Amino acid sequence: MGPEEFRAAGHELIDWIADYRARIPELPVQAQVGPGEVAGKLPAKAPEEAEPFARLLADLEAIVVPGVTQVQHPRYFGWFPSNATLSSALGDLATAGLGALGITWQSAPALTEVEEVVVEWLRELTALPESWKGVIQDTASTACLVALLAARERATDYSEARGGLQAESAPLTVYTTRHAHSSIPKAVALAGYGRDNLRLVGVDPVTYAMRPEALAEAVEADVAAGRRPAAVVVNVGTTGTTAVDPLAEIVPVARRYGMWVHVDAAMAGSALLLPEMRWLVDGVEGADSLCWNPHKWLGTVLDCSLLYVADPAHLIRVMSTNPSYLRSAVDGEVTQYKDWGIPLGRRFRALKLWFHLRLDGVEAIRARLRRDLDNARWLAEQVEAAPGWRVLAPVGLQTVVLRHEPAGLDADGLNRHTLAWVDSVNTSGAALVTPSLLDGVWSVRVSIGAERTERADVELLWRLLQHAAANAEAG
Amino acid sequence: MGPEEFRAAGHELIDWIADYRARIPELPVQAQVGPGEVAGKLPAKAPEEAEPFARLLADLEAIVVPGVTQVQHPRYFGWFPSNATLSSALGDLATAGLGALGITWQSAPALTEVEEVVVEWLRELTALPESWKGVIQDTASTACLVALLAARERATDYSEARGGLQAESAPLTVYTTRHAHSSIPKAVALAGYGRDNLRLVGVDPVTYAMRPEALAEAVEADVAAGRRPAAVVVNVGTTGTTAVDPLAEIVPVARRYGMWVHVDAAMAGSALLLPEMRWLVDGVEGADSLCWNPHKWLGTVLDCSLLYVADPAHLIRVMSTNPSYLRSAVDGEVTQYKDWGIPLGRRFRALKLWFHLRLDGVEAIRARLRRDLDNARWLAEQVEAAPGWRVLAPVGLQTVVLRHEPAGLDADGLNRHTLAWVDSVNTSGAALVTPSLLDGVWSVRVSIGAERTERADVELLWRLLQHAAANAEAG
Repeated sequence: MGPEEFRAAGHELIDWIADYRARIPELPVQAQVGPGEVAGKLPAKAPEEAEPFARLLADLEAIVVPGVTQVQHPRYFGWFPSNATLSSALGDLATAGLGALGITWQSAPALTEVEEVVVEWLRELTALPESWKGVIQDTASTACLVALLAARERATDYSEARGGLQAESAPLTVYTTRHAHSSIPKAVALAGYGRDNLRLVGVDPVTYAMRPEALAEAVEADVAAGRRPAAVVVNVGTTGTTAVDPLAEIVPVARRYGMWVHVDAAMAGSALLLPEMRWLVDGVEGADSLCWNPHKWLGTVLDCSLLYVADPAHLIRVMSTNPSYLRSAVDGEVTQYKDWGIPLGRRFRALKLWFHLRLDGVEAIRARLRRDLDNARWLAEQVEAAPGWRVLAPVGLQTVVLRHEPAGLDADGLNRHTLAWVDSVNTSGAALVTPSLLDGVWSVRVSIGAERTERADVELLWRLLQHAAANAEAG
Repeated sequence: MGPEEFRAAGHELIDWIADYRARIPELPVQAQVGPGEVAGKLPAKAPEEAEPFARLLADLEAIVVPGVTQVQHPRYFGWFPSNATLSSALGDLATAGLGALGITWQSAPALTEVEEVVVEWLRELTALPESWKGVIQDTASTACLVALLAARERATDYSEARGGLQAESAPLTVYTTRHAHSSIPKAVALAGYGRDNLRLVGVDPVTYAMRPEALAEAVEADVAAGRRPAAVVVNVGTTGTTAVDPLAEIVPVARRYGMWVHVDAAMAGSALLLPEMRWLVDGVEGADSLCWNPHKWLGTVLDCSLLYVADPAHLIRVMSTNPSYLRSAVDGEVTQYKDWGIPLGRRFRALKLWFHLRLDGVEAIRARLRRDLDNARWLAEQVEAAPGWRVLAPVGLQTVVLRHEPAGLDADGLNRHTLAWVDSVNTSGAALVTPSLLDGVWSVRVSIGAERTERADVELLWRLLQHAAANAEAG
């Protein structure tokens, strides 16, 4: 496809996207297709001949749109916000249009240096320590794996350069809570620690936050047994309840044993743009790494995750390679992001952050985040005040975990009731919320923060929830 | 930014990209900036107020374009092709516009099912075994790490679920050649095997391909010493010389010892679309996994790497997580790609492959690949026929490794001569080639395959190389 064909098709696609975004509020939130339905509409083989662009657009409309859950919908309250702001989408388009290749600084100096500048902008905006350096990763899952690899290598004095983890005698252990994101135990497993060496430290029964005393006890027991505590993953805004582990109290325990402290603030990190929310990471100057995802609440289109580290030289030593075909005269003077993560080839992801921050402006982004925090507090108040309803965890961020608890139901009955009314809300297409187990019982997460969610949408949701629960109760 | 502002800015950006792509041939190939130059043009802090789109476009033009090496340039012959076809860029734009969230099948059924269909289209097009299943990863580096984690877990009967690699007594070993991509030793290190347990098996001195007898000897020596051979990484199209390890002869050795066979065809995989090139992976039905990157020669915009596996159930067991908030009624009936790789959240990457194949058509893509193979053969013939010039490795793909060897130079002198004339070509901006060490001596890689590189561009390059070498020789 040449530039002129691209121009014509590109204009059509831009119009299609603008129209699509404008009519999202009229679409059902949850995807309305069953397993295999999308695949069944696609041919079994790739086309030998080029197809006209109109056919692609028609398929986008007829097959793809009904086949995705509309996370840009103002009544999307599922999982966590996954905003894809149109300002960042423009940056992403610039990335594809430029077609730059990020393998070394030399292959695309601007790819590296815009990234350096933008992650520094965000470091300053989130008040992370001045000496920390950041890098864009794809997701918090990968960032956590990278952090746990860095922790492993620090604990073993770079065993990767010798016999590997398999040559270590005393086992390394990792600590977090059972409320940690599923990517944390996954990273522990992939990094080779083994799930037997992951300690799920006890949490406070009300806040679901890690108990520092429980961490200290677990660490001491492992040390006494000849094991080597290597890392603690501190959850700032858990997926289940947005619980916040007390970083300032965890750091001294970790420091005492030389453990790596990784802060997983995948969703909550956006809140650090608000000075009044910086308490979330009190004590962060004693941590080793922190990750948060602009592709969630902040709204930089997927995938865009920030990993900050206190000691970049260590990360580089763990990750570096230097084949001859990638050497250049400026090595040593420049940042080589290939040595800050797993992939060699890197997309120019910084452009979407750059466009996002510049086209929307930080003040407007802060106002939106504050709107969402207000909406969550408002919803929590309504739920607390409604007979038979309960808020199940502190609402410190933008997620409300709730349950409708009619009298006379046993545990099984309550679970059936909850799953029934949630399902009726979600299948209606009017809104989407997420059922989730809390202390072994099904609860409902209402995660506020879609870019276009206003108070009226939260009010409507609250009516929908009450209506669905009453209907389910009536049987 | 609302849909109407996006529409206006989007049209401007589409026009800018079309114009930019049209004028790339007039731009210098190599980025023309020094360290810190791009960063120095950017403000130290993010803007509080929204900026007008015109300012972004102006910065793209003035700061970003001169700050990237133009890998879409018809005289880009560096590293490997990194084509970002405009057809795939449209698919990528659709991805950003849709803003779908891939965490489970349920979050975006179309994201999963278009991916399943498109990777199956490409499996069929590349004649990989019918039972194999594929998944899109970001890069071959990540895909190789995933493969080596799968190998590690197969060799240890899922040690990750117990004490991890650190609890294993007999060390696991991995085999490849010294011509393997730098991401292979990196993956060995990150997966915890340790670099001491990576064997660089001997290669044929002419073809630079792995010698199966040398592999067998290395494996037998390790087994005799009580070590456990876990995996061999077979290089199909090495970065240095596009050497092709003899897969059909390697598989029986690996099978004898239960080793995982991973095929790294990151660049060369595109050639498998051509029936006459299928010899590259003769014996692949005995392998366990294969990776290749549509974001290289094929031209699907970064990042897009395909990982195919013979036993998806094993990969899923290694990678799976199943927290309550991600469960749904259709679990078990659908593909959950979160369990096929490291990240949980996934971008709708399949759209760019879907658009690319449909808008360009497979026949035209095959014609382009054949054009590039022809151009490489033509260049190799010119070099072979020119006095003082030498082709240093078999030209089985689209890369020619060459050297100008004037009489009377010692080894150091030859290195200085080579680096001098290459540097003069690259800094001129007229073309870009890559200096690379081969057998410890600097050589020059000419990697043909940019989407817009025609025979005339290769002819011009050949004149430039001769001119530069003659000038350097003359001092």
